[in-house]
Amino acid sequence: MGTEIAQGRRTTIKDIAERAGVSKGAVSYALNGRPGVSDETRERILAIAEELGWYPNRAARALSASRADACGLILARPATTIALEPFFMEFIAGVEACLSPRAIGLTIQLAGSAEEEIEGYRRWFGEHRVDGVFVFDIVQNDPRAAALSSIGLPAVVIGGPDACRPLPAVWHDEASVVVEAVQYLAALGHRKIARVAGVSEFVHTEERTRAFRDTARELGLEAEVVATDYTPESGTRATRRLLSTPKPPTAIIFDSDLLAVTGLGVAQQMGFSVPDDLSLIGWDDSLISRVVHPPLTAITRDIGAYGATAAAHLLKVIEGETSGNIEVPRGELTLRGSTAPPRGVDPARARAALIPDDPARPAVRSVRGSRPIDV
Amino acid sequence: MGTEIAQGRRTTIKDIAERAGVSKGAVSYALNGRPGVSDETRERILAIAEELGWYPNRAARALSASRADACGLILARPATTIALEPFFMEFIAGVEACLSPRAIGLTIQLAGSAEEEIEGYRRWFGEHRVDGVFVFDIVQNDPRAAALSSIGLPAVVIGGPDACRPLPAVWHDEASVVVEAVQYLAALGHRKIARVAGVSEFVHTEERTRAFRDTARELGLEAEVVATDYTPESGTRATRRLLSTPKPPTAIIFDSDLLAVTGLGVAQQMGFSVPDDLSLIGWDDSLISRVVHPPLTAITRDIGAYGATAAAHLLKVIEGETSGNIEVPRGELTLRGSTAPPRGVDPARARAALIPDDPARPAVRSVRGSRPIDV
Repeated sequence: MGTEIAQGRRTTIKDIAERAGVSKGAVSYALNGRPGVSDETRERILAIAEELGWYPNRAARALSASRADACGLILARPATTIALEPFFMEFIAGVEACLSPRAIGLTIQLAGSAEEEIEGYRRWFGEHRVDGVFVFDIVQNDPRAAALSSIGLPAVVIGGPDACRPLPAVWHDEASVVVEAVQYLAALGHRKIARVAGVSEFVHTEERTRAFRDTARELGLEAEVVATDYTPESGTRATRRLLSTPKPPTAIIFDSDLLAVTGLGVAQQMGFSVPDDLSLIGWDDSLISRVVHPPLTAITRDIGAYGATAAAHLLKVIEGETSGNIEVPRGELTLRGSTAPPRGVDPARARAALIPDDPARPAVRSVRGSRPIDV
Repeated sequence: MGTEIAQGRRTTIKDIAERAGVSKGAVSYALNGRPGVSDETRERILAIAEELGWYPNRAARALSASRADACGLILARPATTIALEPFFMEFIAGVEACLSPRAIGLTIQLAGSAEEEIEGYRRWFGEHRVDGVFVFDIVQNDPRAAALSSIGLPAVVIGGPDACRPLPAVWHDEASVVVEAVQYLAALGHRKIARVAGVSEFVHTEERTRAFRDTARELGLEAEVVATDYTPESGTRATRRLLSTPKPPTAIIFDSDLLAVTGLGVAQQMGFSVPDDLSLIGWDDSLISRVVHPPLTAITRDIGAYGATAAAHLLKVIEGETSGNIEVPRGELTLRGSTAPPRGVDPARARAALIPDDPARPAVRSVRGSRPIDV
């Protein structure tokens, strides 16, 4: 008797047993690698299972193994901003590169607030829907740390490890590349610089702001920071405000690619020539910063690798193999056409005025190693 | 005896029974709304279940109900392109707006090819991982139609309904807005136009190309189409090629926002003033087309609403309530600063030369109603 599997019906152990002419118990032994059937029968059963397209029922497996074979992420940012910020999809692509070969799914959800996000984690855990989650946009004393610990849902924090203790974090040093960028602008001869920052409550924004202000002060530069909520509207407003003053800055650093491209548009619209009148530096260096004109000098991060590392770490956390932090490579400054000396400034003379004669003073203030690494 | 739920342990029916001082059977009756307990006991049990944070085990429910309570989408495009194309995240945000309130998850995966995509569907179905999927980037005689039908995994096609029969589709007319855009460029006085198109095998690209060529021919315009694979590299190449000819086009329509922004960068880099030397029209009108300078005239679609409609339709398809198609609103042309008459052309004279005297001839060739609607 042939075993015809009807369209839309999943192959069951019974189907395999009928085709093989053995008991369902024998099929179960064979598929689960348990003794009780001869090697020859086992091989025949496995061949039939493959031919009929049998897959272990994930729901049954999840029930017995307490594994959902899925990771999740809940983003409490407006949908339009997420859609525009290449960071998230690049991160997700990196996560997928790690999870897909292991047949582990990625479930994503949008939330309207941190409370909604926590409620989502609670439901996901209660429903066995995911085995662990990625947590973004960390704030000081982040309430999600306590919530996730109390729920017991394994999690990996993307960003600064201090604010979300005891959750394990995958993070990188945010400060030192800001120091480098400010030093570079100073060396070009810029004396008045600004930064269009992300959400000021986020820990990574705070770290960048501190490094920006400290370095500018050390180098004797005027420096202003304008916070945004990452939306193009707030970025437009911030850049317009900075450029509408009687003596506007000659260089601006932006906290995201979307903010930087927005800022370029405002500058061009207001008649500023980039880089002659105004130098711009973007952040993340996704393709969007390279396709505009001029292409943007940017702080480059390998977001895909960041996502893949975070996913591998989360799988280890889920298995209980680690609860530590992982540091990934920090951003690097990539020079392109959007930065230049300010109009009429000779960079050589500017550098001479800038660099102190004391050789004992390090040119780059070291900020590495200032964060805990306990992996 | 107090029932302390240890951190990281899910509340069970046993926990509720202990706290309520009743049998597990009574709790089960109460939670499942079955008779066998008094109203008073039922209310007390439900209150305790809520207090202890009890959720039905989704795996157990999935096992008995054959529902994964998740939808999925597999994208066979390069990760970097997906990260940059606002379409996908806006669509996903729209899908989430429909699924999240129903506590239905969305699982996403990237694939390297159509074969890998189909294998993903087979595994998802076999493992009870999703209840249905969204299918993108339809080609003629799409192999995924037969594959999904044979697997029996409910699916909704995003795009043209013909190529993926018998799968239900959520689609919109692609052609009429192309007709409008070409007519608008002709009315401004453009006589040589081009289009930087997406992947030529995709059905929606074919439809746009046909409408573009037919309308240009009717209006007596020179028209060229250059296909890309949606990457910025191919878009850069296409625009550069078009603008490097001795007599370049004076207007270009792009098939995506990313291609349009890329094209704007190439034009500016090559010294073309937009819109004086070159008019540009983008497609989808995500925020990115509004933040560049000049802001782009674009074909506007409500991608979020498209995603939400598709999700609602997929849920109905999963429930067996429909197998028909749904038509959503077509794109609209939104005028901004990137389009103008070509340098030295008087649009009034251009229009006079263009519009035929025969009032019986419709100005807009009707292309609506040319697609099957069988909902």
